[in-house]
Amino acid sequence: MTEILEPGKASQSTLNGTRIVPEQVPTAAPKKRILLNAFDMFTVGHMSHGQWRNPKDKASTKRRDLTYWTNLAKLLEKGDINALFLADSYGRIDVYKGSAETAMRSGIHWPMGDPAVPITAMAAVTERLGFAITSSTSFEKPYVLAKRLSTLDHLTKGRIGWNVVTSFQASAFKAVGIDQIPHDLRYEIADEYLQVLYKLWESSWADDALVEDRENENYADFDKIRTIHHHGKHFKVDAPHILDPSPQRTPFLFQAGASSAGMDFAARHAEGVFVSAYSPAMLAPRVKEIRAKAAAAGRDPKSIKIFASLTPIIGATAEEANEKYQDALKYASPEAGLAFFSGNSGIDLSQYDLDTEIKPTDDGIDARIQSIIDTFKYTGTEIPSWTPRNIGKMISLGHNGHVPVGTPEQVADKLEEWIDVADVDGFNLGYIITPESFEDIVNLLVPELRKRGRYAPLGESGTMRERVYGAGQSKLRNDHPASKFKWANYKEDVDDS
Amino acid sequence: MTEILEPGKASQSTLNGTRIVPEQVPTAAPKKRILLNAFDMFTVGHMSHGQWRNPKDKASTKRRDLTYWTNLAKLLEKGDINALFLADSYGRIDVYKGSAETAMRSGIHWPMGDPAVPITAMAAVTERLGFAITSSTSFEKPYVLAKRLSTLDHLTKGRIGWNVVTSFQASAFKAVGIDQIPHDLRYEIADEYLQVLYKLWESSWADDALVEDRENENYADFDKIRTIHHHGKHFKVDAPHILDPSPQRTPFLFQAGASSAGMDFAARHAEGVFVSAYSPAMLAPRVKEIRAKAAAAGRDPKSIKIFASLTPIIGATAEEANEKYQDALKYASPEAGLAFFSGNSGIDLSQYDLDTEIKPTDDGIDARIQSIIDTFKYTGTEIPSWTPRNIGKMISLGHNGHVPVGTPEQVADKLEEWIDVADVDGFNLGYIITPESFEDIVNLLVPELRKRGRYAPLGESGTMRERVYGAGQSKLRNDHPASKFKWANYKEDVDDS
Repeated sequence: MTEILEPGKASQSTLNGTRIVPEQVPTAAPKKRILLNAFDMFTVGHMSHGQWRNPKDKASTKRRDLTYWTNLAKLLEKGDINALFLADSYGRIDVYKGSAETAMRSGIHWPMGDPAVPITAMAAVTERLGFAITSSTSFEKPYVLAKRLSTLDHLTKGRIGWNVVTSFQASAFKAVGIDQIPHDLRYEIADEYLQVLYKLWESSWADDALVEDRENENYADFDKIRTIHHHGKHFKVDAPHILDPSPQRTPFLFQAGASSAGMDFAARHAEGVFVSAYSPAMLAPRVKEIRAKAAAAGRDPKSIKIFASLTPIIGATAEEANEKYQDALKYASPEAGLAFFSGNSGIDLSQYDLDTEIKPTDDGIDARIQSIIDTFKYTGTEIPSWTPRNIGKMISLGHNGHVPVGTPEQVADKLEEWIDVADVDGFNLGYIITPESFEDIVNLLVPELRKRGRYAPLGESGTMRERVYGAGQSKLRNDHPASKFKWANYKEDVDDS
Repeated sequence: MTEILEPGKASQSTLNGTRIVPEQVPTAAPKKRILLNAFDMFTVGHMSHGQWRNPKDKASTKRRDLTYWTNLAKLLEKGDINALFLADSYGRIDVYKGSAETAMRSGIHWPMGDPAVPITAMAAVTERLGFAITSSTSFEKPYVLAKRLSTLDHLTKGRIGWNVVTSFQASAFKAVGIDQIPHDLRYEIADEYLQVLYKLWESSWADDALVEDRENENYADFDKIRTIHHHGKHFKVDAPHILDPSPQRTPFLFQAGASSAGMDFAARHAEGVFVSAYSPAMLAPRVKEIRAKAAAAGRDPKSIKIFASLTPIIGATAEEANEKYQDALKYASPEAGLAFFSGNSGIDLSQYDLDTEIKPTDDGIDARIQSIIDTFKYTGTEIPSWTPRNIGKMISLGHNGHVPVGTPEQVADKLEEWIDVADVDGFNLGYIITPESFEDIVNLLVPELRKRGRYAPLGESGTMRERVYGAGQSKLRNDHPASKFKWANYKEDVDDS
């Protein structure tokens, strides 16, 4: 997935020897704006592992110092970044060797803090940057989350996004003390969870319910506040929403499901979809499917903004970029990479000897391991030999997607290629080391994108939804399936469809 | 409960004609330091209702502007206030007239935001002020709350207190969608909830588990992180704590139970107890009982810090104080007071005509209403006649406790009387209008207490627990019952006692 970019080098476009021809490569179409989110997590190693050993990395200060967060927010706002996107989890990575030891030693998603906590500190020192926080539909009651997200949306003046996850790790369910829920049932529950939240956020208070009428001692108008009665299969709520409508009411909704149930869920709910892939050609069919499903749900397929995960290594010159890459390679942790892959795939890679080459012809090689090898080959990653140690090392470097290494021009070319070939709208950009990787994005990449007319206007402001859909669109679009829950449209007796 | 303080006026000390002689009034004992918390809530009217109609009141901005919170925090820090104490609830007040209409119209605990949300914004602009937030053991999983509170304690550098509540409002249970839990069972559940949290906070990580050893790629030492296996009656957790120990590990524990089960709970868990009473003499026996129960649990009874709820109206001169009181009377809302009393007591006071005097000899007058009248009489509150309207108006003015009106000297005298007679350690000071009431506390009352040698040293710093117990005491005291959960003391097989 790592690709050293060379001027003039054509992008590879074969996978397993089959030439991939993207169906649509617009040639003279108007330039689509590229949305950038900074992708971080309240933990040490998020997408690149072992880098905390680099003295320049400040990931460790996240735990103990608010200034990590406030400085990061100010930096991102300076670059007119769309949002700081914060992942989250309640589990630990414990498939490799059947233990969490590697994850703990290597600081992979461990230890981990609550991403909602530092938001207001960052909001207080910024005016425009959005904040997308991850919260699971499996571990908290909808009424509790509704109150927290509305409070956040009020105090940030509408700059909150919610990354809806259903949680898959067995270790998370054991920690919270809930029996693990099978995959498709998790999405069924999440679907009802969202319905409850739409009712609270969209249906409970009229726009003019909060009157603050001093003369008649009428702070909130009882007749314009509807008590929600939701008696569903998984949730029960009998109450009005506890807080008056925040600037966006429903926070901007992100989602990341890659499964069929996940994509159906995205089509019904998501406004931003976060995807991971190693190349734009591999991603293109998935993007097409998401947009088709959205269209089938009556939505403008372009209104689903799709963000690909990407970890660029940027230098002012190609040499500088390569030096940074060599530095990253030095700290990349092979076992951390294997542990991470094992945690995500459920396959314990410790069954293979670290230094014995894996051959595609080996019996019993899992298709997913083979696919990793194919992907590395496809993206032109240079690797001395296909041993688990080497594979793990590469995975530990921006494992979740593409890692372009080059100058701002070269990386911008790459982003444009993804936009054109995969039809994505933007990127969740991860860090190798923080905040340096984010500084490079703001100081080097953003000016280049701006120069190309591909980026946000200087000092652009508004709610998170307005920055994505345009001024005036702070609330859910009318073609969003949840618009039927808006106060004026809401019919209690037909709402549980 | 309101008392206009007059110089030289002896404090009344009769209740229902019975002279109350406090058992211990220290005469030459060393002066006990008075701890002050500012008592607020993420809502419009917290303890005084109707005051949002006063144009000087800024309670309404809490919802929509972080500057309310950051300015308040800076003010309180200037006054070396111990902590900002934030109440919370998921319910609405709906007993009066069988409806939430009065509460909504009057802005009584409605609308309401999540008190945890603005904390880091305030922490970022202060260095010493503590933050005590309310969270219920009935609505969230312990693992989820443990993560959030640890994150807060890290990012505030140990300035977090947790006000443990079990929640009593039927409307809150209906909102969250949980069958209402009977009172004593709620405390049984809360007891186990605390045990789970002690295990996560105290037993899971050794002090030296987070090694950040770059040479050996060992961020967190697996051998010094214990997986908690709690399989109790109400909760199940199989996981280590997700975050390394924060400065205090267990946040400073506040609690407010007034019932017998509540006081037992306080003796086992609380470090700060929050109490409400209308006079120190009425409170004294309760304080004595709490301390006795703590002693029986093997704790230094003085280590339980007891905070009485009190809403002072302070003026530079007696005239100014009285003007503020008259202004407060003007906005005090009779029905809001009745609705609030009804919500707390479960008795719908709308059954009485608003303007017909209630006579103690009336048939069917509930003992609790009679006790309110007795209390008003006892504290010398002047009231034209005992109609529900007049009673409601007085309740709506700092309804939860005493409301001394006077100069800084007079109010300080009052606080000293409470300290001496009731043996409390400090106060949760509410507002009539905010931030003005808090400004008066910081600018007028604090200097007077300082002058008397009763107050915190200038610029005192440290974790919340250190500021209460002294430098070096960031962790639970060794006589706290939960000290058995500390890493070195913890024995898994005997911990479920």
